[in-house]
Amino acid sequence: MSAYEEAVSIMYWDMRTGAPKKGIPARSQAVGVLSTELFKMSTSDEMKNYLTELQKENDGLNPILLKTVEEVQKEYDLSKKIPTDEYQEYVVLCSESEAIWEEAKEKSDFDMFLPYLEKVVAMTKKFIGYWGEKDGNAYNRLLDQYEPGLTTEIIDEVFDQLKETIVPLVKKIGAQNNQPNTSFIFEKFPKEQQKAFNYKILEQLGYDFDAGRLDETVHPFAMGINTGDVRITTRYDEHDFRSGIFGTIHECGHALYEQNFDKKLEGYPVADGTSMGIHESQSLFYEHFIGHHEGFWKYNFESLQAYSPEQFGNVSLEEFLSAINVAQPSLIRIEADELTYPLHVMIRYEIEKELFNGDLEVKDLPQVWNDKYEEYLGIRPENDAEGVLQDVHWSGGMFGYFPSYALGYMYAAQLKNAMVKDLPQFDELCERGEFEPILAWLTEHVHQYGKMKKPLEIIQDTTGEGLNAKHLADYLEEKYSALYKLS
Amino acid sequence: MSAYEEAVSIMYWDMRTGAPKKGIPARSQAVGVLSTELFKMSTSDEMKNYLTELQKENDGLNPILLKTVEEVQKEYDLSKKIPTDEYQEYVVLCSESEAIWEEAKEKSDFDMFLPYLEKVVAMTKKFIGYWGEKDGNAYNRLLDQYEPGLTTEIIDEVFDQLKETIVPLVKKIGAQNNQPNTSFIFEKFPKEQQKAFNYKILEQLGYDFDAGRLDETVHPFAMGINTGDVRITTRYDEHDFRSGIFGTIHECGHALYEQNFDKKLEGYPVADGTSMGIHESQSLFYEHFIGHHEGFWKYNFESLQAYSPEQFGNVSLEEFLSAINVAQPSLIRIEADELTYPLHVMIRYEIEKELFNGDLEVKDLPQVWNDKYEEYLGIRPENDAEGVLQDVHWSGGMFGYFPSYALGYMYAAQLKNAMVKDLPQFDELCERGEFEPILAWLTEHVHQYGKMKKPLEIIQDTTGEGLNAKHLADYLEEKYSALYKLS
Repeated sequence: MSAYEEAVSIMYWDMRTGAPKKGIPARSQAVGVLSTELFKMSTSDEMKNYLTELQKENDGLNPILLKTVEEVQKEYDLSKKIPTDEYQEYVVLCSESEAIWEEAKEKSDFDMFLPYLEKVVAMTKKFIGYWGEKDGNAYNRLLDQYEPGLTTEIIDEVFDQLKETIVPLVKKIGAQNNQPNTSFIFEKFPKEQQKAFNYKILEQLGYDFDAGRLDETVHPFAMGINTGDVRITTRYDEHDFRSGIFGTIHECGHALYEQNFDKKLEGYPVADGTSMGIHESQSLFYEHFIGHHEGFWKYNFESLQAYSPEQFGNVSLEEFLSAINVAQPSLIRIEADELTYPLHVMIRYEIEKELFNGDLEVKDLPQVWNDKYEEYLGIRPENDAEGVLQDVHWSGGMFGYFPSYALGYMYAAQLKNAMVKDLPQFDELCERGEFEPILAWLTEHVHQYGKMKKPLEIIQDTTGEGLNAKHLADYLEEKYSALYKLS
Repeated sequence: MSAYEEAVSIMYWDMRTGAPKKGIPARSQAVGVLSTELFKMSTSDEMKNYLTELQKENDGLNPILLKTVEEVQKEYDLSKKIPTDEYQEYVVLCSESEAIWEEAKEKSDFDMFLPYLEKVVAMTKKFIGYWGEKDGNAYNRLLDQYEPGLTTEIIDEVFDQLKETIVPLVKKIGAQNNQPNTSFIFEKFPKEQQKAFNYKILEQLGYDFDAGRLDETVHPFAMGINTGDVRITTRYDEHDFRSGIFGTIHECGHALYEQNFDKKLEGYPVADGTSMGIHESQSLFYEHFIGHHEGFWKYNFESLQAYSPEQFGNVSLEEFLSAINVAQPSLIRIEADELTYPLHVMIRYEIEKELFNGDLEVKDLPQVWNDKYEEYLGIRPENDAEGVLQDVHWSGGMFGYFPSYALGYMYAAQLKNAMVKDLPQFDELCERGEFEPILAWLTEHVHQYGKMKKPLEIIQDTTGEGLNAKHLADYLEEKYSALYKLS
């Protein structure tokens, strides 16, 4: 099964990093066939027998096998409920739908994407029918797949808490009218130079290029193909270096997680991220708490200047830091700043909830999307490319995933809080470009375990408490009050 | 099965174009698992039943299905005779043997490679035992796998014919002592510039970038992953532009073949090259009859100069043409010129024939190899890296493949001869950079058929005769007599 998974991963990676478009239909078919074989194996009588036999020997199993049986059994129970032909149909549909999404986004043509998205939503609803709702809540069923135990009840509460901090902060900043100069951000930074700088930063952060590679794509992702092959992708904008550089640091966080699983887990399905939220905590930790850290840029700013001297030659470190930490409502989630980012996630969460628990129809998404942006962020997309078409997730059936982004952000703030107790010299380490102790701490507390610990076990064992939005709220309050000299 | 083939292809392509090294062991395992599944399917009872049922309906089948059944039956009969465990042993052996060969070549240490090569030869002989000899000739069985219908009787005759032309020509040129200046060939041509020039040439020749892509590798190849995805790889040497540029044109010839199969064949196993020889006829046609053509460079030389002005600024078109068409005995097959190339193939053919039909032992290969180079080319390898270890083929069990290279060359000359009857303005088309009619002609007579016609059917239908070495001999005689002003 892991051979099949490896094949499907590499085929997918290839489709997203430059496979020629005329090959996509056959490729989608091939991915569909192999995914279906995988699905058949995972729901086969043979699998059932393995599980039954292994469960009999429960006491004699080592912890890795014990956890493996538990994970595989959960997967088995979910998959077993989906008829094979429908699963196959779904996989092919998602693959086609993603290709169409890419084209639709390019052309900013929602109508082109609409029939595919409608089918994806319809099939997802059908699957929820097979699985059954969770606590009488259809959307909870989806949430649980990405973050075991997560419910709308929990999310509603922490999102409300965050909103209470973020919305007034955004308003205050808006009213202040003292936004920093950001004009140099949009000056030309040649792609090849950005790429070279990225390679340097990745080396610095401890990304292992013998076990990975960096490529370009439209919607960046990191992907563990096997434990010795964890790839990063990014997207360069020559007139906004932030997407290439901070995007790469973000994906690097994901990749470091998967490059540092305990070697003992190799070859078992537990050699994987324990949840989307914990995965995202690693990427956001690197993107925000390191990539936007003053010390990080004290160490790297001169080098950045050398890669684009005309752009940065007359910019001071202080000006640079103010500019990259600007908080300003914007339309694109992956380019959003640290402060407004959670609002983007909340919008998607509310839409998904309405789509699966309420009456929202797919055809109405652009309208609802734009209205919510206007409500939460005070700005309205001018077209669907910068609106509802911006994210790949829905095209591939990933509903219930978005909340993990905000959850991961909260986890990251909690982990950072715990880390500085063990590494009080955190700021100095960043200033000296010594990221090894930071990676070692994360590996010790998070990475090594893979799926051997559940998300909240990791948080509890490391921070001494459960999910807590306060750490992130405090961090944002403190950071932006200082940056904008708010009273 | 075609989904599995697609997966194995893309995994292999990826390993050869930049997969990180720590991921290779798991990747090799995965390729092994999927290849074995493929083998099991091809020899399964299910396959047998399909074939039996389809053969019953022979009259009702359309031509594509008829041909498909014929091809699959042949494959089935061959594979079925090999016990599965021996097939697996062979696949593992070849994979190990290739790795050892690479190391042995690097160290120029034949003894290190010897035990592996001996095992590969022994297993190949065992397989011939299972398959049975062909016309009482063991080596014919191997030849037939790459070029259906090809026998030592045919090859002996055409190779003798070629030898009669080539050997005296090489001697005459050697005696003349008027070799052209080639020094500028080895001046620096930056990789990025070579790459940009290659893209331009590929567009010109009609390579469809929406159905392919160009990447770098160590040992270049073209690969059809599906009919909408036919990739080219190349290798750049900044101090010898020939490998990058002519190598790319060569692989482009292979790729044009697979990009232009009749769309009706899509999804059937007949959407494939009909033989190695015909495949090679397409790559060599483009490499030699176009890439080394005076008209081609009349059209492209100015552009080449612009991509590397210091190197070519003071070189005239005439000097350039003389340099790229230099004929000189050399030790490495893939770097050999148009004239001496067939001699490299003949040496390998004679050795293989002796290995399988005669008494030649593997341990004696270096001695025999070196003696033959001295005899045919007048030069003797100083070590086995530039001698018997230079090619990968034998390490992977590819015996009987080499003759296709020379065969393809002869086919190409025959096709060229037929083409100029239909396109008497061939030279002018090259001079004007109009390659579309040439590609259209090849598509009409060769490409579109895939495996729907056997190699000699294509040659017969297109040229009105069977395999004929005379066209290549005449071409070489004429070309080199003119270039070297031989009496």
